[in-house]
Amino acid sequence: MKVAFPAISLPKGFRFSAVAAGIKASGRPDLALLEAASGTAAAALFTRNRVVAAPIEIGRSALQRSHGRVRAVIVNSGNANCATGQAGKQACQRVCREVARCLQIPVDQVLPSSTGIIGVPLPADKIVAKLPQLVANRKSTAQAMREFAEAILTTDTKLKVASERIGAGAQQIILAGVAKGAGMIHPQLATMLVFLLTDAVARPVELRQLLKAVCDETFNCISVDGDTSTNDTVLLLASGQSGVNVKASKAREKFQEALQRICQSLAGQIVADGEGVKHVVQFQVAEARNREEALRIGRAIAHSLLVKAALAGSDPNWGRILAAIGACGVPLDPQRVSISIGDELVCRHGERRDFDVENAHRALSQPACRVRVRLGRGAATVVFTTGDLTEEYVRVNAAYST
Amino acid sequence: MKVAFPAISLPKGFRFSAVAAGIKASGRPDLALLEAASGTAAAALFTRNRVVAAPIEIGRSALQRSHGRVRAVIVNSGNANCATGQAGKQACQRVCREVARCLQIPVDQVLPSSTGIIGVPLPADKIVAKLPQLVANRKSTAQAMREFAEAILTTDTKLKVASERIGAGAQQIILAGVAKGAGMIHPQLATMLVFLLTDAVARPVELRQLLKAVCDETFNCISVDGDTSTNDTVLLLASGQSGVNVKASKAREKFQEALQRICQSLAGQIVADGEGVKHVVQFQVAEARNREEALRIGRAIAHSLLVKAALAGSDPNWGRILAAIGACGVPLDPQRVSISIGDELVCRHGERRDFDVENAHRALSQPACRVRVRLGRGAATVVFTTGDLTEEYVRVNAAYST
Repeated sequence: MKVAFPAISLPKGFRFSAVAAGIKASGRPDLALLEAASGTAAAALFTRNRVVAAPIEIGRSALQRSHGRVRAVIVNSGNANCATGQAGKQACQRVCREVARCLQIPVDQVLPSSTGIIGVPLPADKIVAKLPQLVANRKSTAQAMREFAEAILTTDTKLKVASERIGAGAQQIILAGVAKGAGMIHPQLATMLVFLLTDAVARPVELRQLLKAVCDETFNCISVDGDTSTNDTVLLLASGQSGVNVKASKAREKFQEALQRICQSLAGQIVADGEGVKHVVQFQVAEARNREEALRIGRAIAHSLLVKAALAGSDPNWGRILAAIGACGVPLDPQRVSISIGDELVCRHGERRDFDVENAHRALSQPACRVRVRLGRGAATVVFTTGDLTEEYVRVNAAYST
Repeated sequence: MKVAFPAISLPKGFRFSAVAAGIKASGRPDLALLEAASGTAAAALFTRNRVVAAPIEIGRSALQRSHGRVRAVIVNSGNANCATGQAGKQACQRVCREVARCLQIPVDQVLPSSTGIIGVPLPADKIVAKLPQLVANRKSTAQAMREFAEAILTTDTKLKVASERIGAGAQQIILAGVAKGAGMIHPQLATMLVFLLTDAVARPVELRQLLKAVCDETFNCISVDGDTSTNDTVLLLASGQSGVNVKASKAREKFQEALQRICQSLAGQIVADGEGVKHVVQFQVAEARNREEALRIGRAIAHSLLVKAALAGSDPNWGRILAAIGACGVPLDPQRVSISIGDELVCRHGERRDFDVENAHRALSQPACRVRVRLGRGAATVVFTTGDLTEEYVRVNAAYST
């Protein structure tokens, strides 16, 4: 685990703490609390998987009942509390009730979140036993936020954080984000666990609009392995403590841009830390008829095992990219498709082209590379980011639960 | 390469030969000829990929012009002749013309077939130079068929053949099949290279009906890596030399059943020899609303990297299977889903169940295992067969072309 932690700006109105509750067999920190100031507005996006974990069901319903108000987020790693039936829901509710009691806040304003193995009962006793310690130790420091970010990780090898200061006349807003995710990454609306915190003033409905627009362009355009988790959550909290309203004419645009950059950064960090990933590749799918078609092709390329394995070997095997495009169901004309790897045009109008193989190989050997696909069908473009498929991915995932 | 070759029954009316033409860098056999007797009827299914190789375009059109008559099949391995443009088509046509000239048959009755890397010019000179030798050496022996089956392989480690004798009163029909395929296996109608040969009497239209029905149940229900090749071909040839017509009341049913078994056997051999595959798993998706829905779920499970990696570790991680089912877009109720691994019911009505983990692990450790998913939605069942995703798959495919 690399614990390098970039300098982070902390928005006002949030406190953090973390602890090892014994959920992870490793004994590493696995329980984290985020407390938000009174009046904090919230918006969240959850997984589109039909199979959803207990905390998703309970959190979604709490958010509705509280009309977008959140005062605390309780996160455990090491156990997804999914496919755990009625007992799993009761365990989750018990944890939320205890958090509400300790912090003296309404239970509807506690959002639960879990990540880890599916189908194992949540050890609620272990969690409840640690709550007083979590509550006692909560702090609004960068160090406390770092500990929070570390405790929500599972197979991740790196902390994932980003922050920005947004000037608004003499005042400023701070926006920060914390994420986890390294496998089962193929969001379909929301994704992974992402907690976005700001001290801006905003109503839940405004946060929701902002979050949806930004997620579509960021977390919905990445994939590690094409598997969609049952626990994906992106939460945006606005404490209002900066006194700057996002509706202010200048602030709104700047805020949305900053939110987009923060989400793009976290999404990139998630792919780069994807299980076994050695190379991050951005597939730019251009000249599609519309965004949906571009996304479909981006996904098809990014999910092709043969393409991903070729990336592991930095092999400019563009025929596999072309084959993946042809098989994805879009009624395109292969003779209009061109492919570039880095600066090398490797396939023009569906045909091979003499190119500098060494140059293309070198481009793919970098930690990050761009592959451009032009379809000759229209004007829509999507950038879909994925990693390579390495032997390490298989090693990590062949020996997870047993 | 294991060269064990099961006893094979040879249908009348076919001759085979094979040679090393220098297409493969390894110097292994890479060019094979199959000659069929005069009057042979044919039906073929080709890849559904929008990107199709030159031999697919040329073969499909030849088959139309000849009204389902084939006298020769010329197959090369090591080069797919795909994305090679006009030059690739001309190279393919030149090879077909030369085969026709050597055998003194119409060029429309020569079916070309290629498998190997995409986007590299076909070395037609090397192929044409070896044709006289191929023609001179053609024989109707099991040994010659073995050599044909070996020369069409690429990353395969085993020959893939199957045959049956079908009694029809005092007479008999023989049905034999040869296949290659180990990667880029996710047929979507036809698949891989499969040559099915019989000495039954049949018209092309009858062959086509039989082939389509049987392929849907066999080659369309397997997957190694979810990638669909640009060169997939399943060809059924009937020489008529047995004198038994498949339309004869008793013969037809027996013939279709035998064809189904042969195709099932070849499909199973392909998955078992899939790149890096150590375990073959049959996912039986039962109680679906219809066949299409069952297939969609079967595919989703079989294409989940996390499921496939768990299979590599014989890890009964059923939560990943449930998550894959939930994410595939079928509007199912997770609380009606049950999953069994071997004899162990591991998930009942969407919830974990105490089960004998060792027993489930043991079942998955076998070379072949069955996993049963019940959806509680209807009466349709599909069995979808796939292999595990091992580090070896990545090794094989990270270093293929460069």
